Amino acid sequence: MQGNKNIMKRNIKLLMEYDGGRYDGWQRLGKKNSGTTIQGKIEEVLSKMTGETIELIGSGRTDAGVHARGQVANFHTDSDMKCWEMKYYLNRYLPQDIGILYVSDVPERFHSRLNAKSKRYIYRVATGDVPSVFDRHYTWYCFDRLDMGLMKEGADLMVGQHDFKGFSSVKKTNKSTVRTVSQIDIDVKEREIDLIFEGNGFLYNMVRIMAGTLVEIGTGDRESETVKEVFRTKNREKAGMTLPPQGLFLDEVFYE
Amino acid sequence: MQGNKNIMKRNIKLLMEYDGGRYDGWQRLGKKNSGTTIQGKIEEVLSKMTGETIELIGSGRTDAGVHARGQVANFHTDSDMKCWEMKYYLNRYLPQDIGILYVSDVPERFHSRLNAKSKRYIYRVATGDVPSVFDRHYTWYCFDRLDMGLMKEGADLMVGQHDFKGFSSVKKTNKSTVRTVSQIDIDVKEREIDLIFEGNGFLYNMVRIMAGTLVEIGTGDRESETVKEVFRTKNREKAGMTLPPQGLFLDEVFYE
Repeated sequence: MQGNKNIMKRNIKLLMEYDGGRYDGWQRLGKKNSGTTIQGKIEEVLSKMTGETIELIGSGRTDAGVHARGQVANFHTDSDMKCWEMKYYLNRYLPQDIGILYVSDVPERFHSRLNAKSKRYIYRVATGDVPSVFDRHYTWYCFDRLDMGLMKEGADLMVGQHDFKGFSSVKKTNKSTVRTVSQIDIDVKEREIDLIFEGNGFLYNMVRIMAGTLVEIGTGDRESETVKEVFRTKNREKAGMTLPPQGLFLDEVFYE
Repeated sequence: MQGNKNIMKRNIKLLMEYDGGRYDGWQRLGKKNSGTTIQGKIEEVLSKMTGETIELIGSGRTDAGVHARGQVANFHTDSDMKCWEMKYYLNRYLPQDIGILYVSDVPERFHSRLNAKSKRYIYRVATGDVPSVFDRHYTWYCFDRLDMGLMKEGADLMVGQHDFKGFSSVKKTNKSTVRTVSQIDIDVKEREIDLIFEGNGFLYNMVRIMAGTLVEIGTGDRESETVKEVFRTKNREKAGMTLPPQGLFLDEVFYE
């Protein structure tokens, strides 16, 4: 058991939502940007709450400006605070753009990132001739008309197990860039189209590039068949634009 | 026909939405606050667009911080621009928190305020143990549990033709403070309760005070019967708190 510093500690799981608008993303890098990252902000409050130095394990990063409705993280502590007390304390001392939805004790072996089976991301595209003023910080506005049939075609070509390197901003890597996208749904609303992606893992910028590619297919600027070429060549240049972060939401993380 | 300066001019109707968060309300008072009021902002762009000095007639005021999904206004002009061109120009040069949804030519006699038959306002109350981070600028958060049955009782007592002076911030006035509230609906959502008011006219702060009174009834801090006493005494002190502006939306203005 030597070396397992977390033995006998409680393992606490958090379910969170946040407006990523004013943050440099989820991940704290060292101590420098703890105040400008979501991880850093929550760790600060957790550390004050417990009197310990808390390290939060997120299910994965979200980029600067990206939002979450259901981010998951866990941390180990000796604290004997009740979960509802923790939730109350966190929501009281965290800024208004971070909300802790649920706090629970989980088995010691639970790990937010390693145990995540799949995730759902939603990219919200505002449509129509006037973007909604109320959603302006949570959508990306597309002035051009989008053809749902073409987008559906493109989405169907993306679903499945593929090497998504061309649909990512990943540079040279030894790690596998093969992922499985199990489902892509397109939800047409009154002044908005939601692109819903589910998969077992997403590479850096992958959802924003897939969404950008689908938008270019929808406007007619690109053939849906080009999706195949991105998979074949693994060349980022062959895929569509990277849509801006403010339309992207990490919606849910799934565990066994 | 002498004195009718608008004779032969076009009469243009606008349907608008706006996020009132950073404005001093709808109404421009003189020239001083034209840049900080919604009326002033739109008039500035309309005047540049037409080369005329445009005065915009709104269906009514909204207070500082109050939002609108369906505010209506009209103005007279000699411009021969097409309506779609006006809409495009306005949305291009107005700030992102004001959106022009519809522009149309209407008969010369149409007057946004005088012809309005009724209006619908919605007050959005965030509920549950954590307010949604994404709606934080568009709701007022009520931590306490609200009893829907009691609120419904209170709402039913408010509906009808009454002197609403006690439910307003109106000071001494010679004008009638009798209004008809035709309907109050309570829409219970997942983490939100919407209070929906329809009536032929609303006094200064009336919706926010009615909403505050209903919330106090819902928490049990006040008996629903007190509504009758406010009508009887016409005393503002007998009614509930004025809820803050950020939860209030002018939803729709109805014409014949």
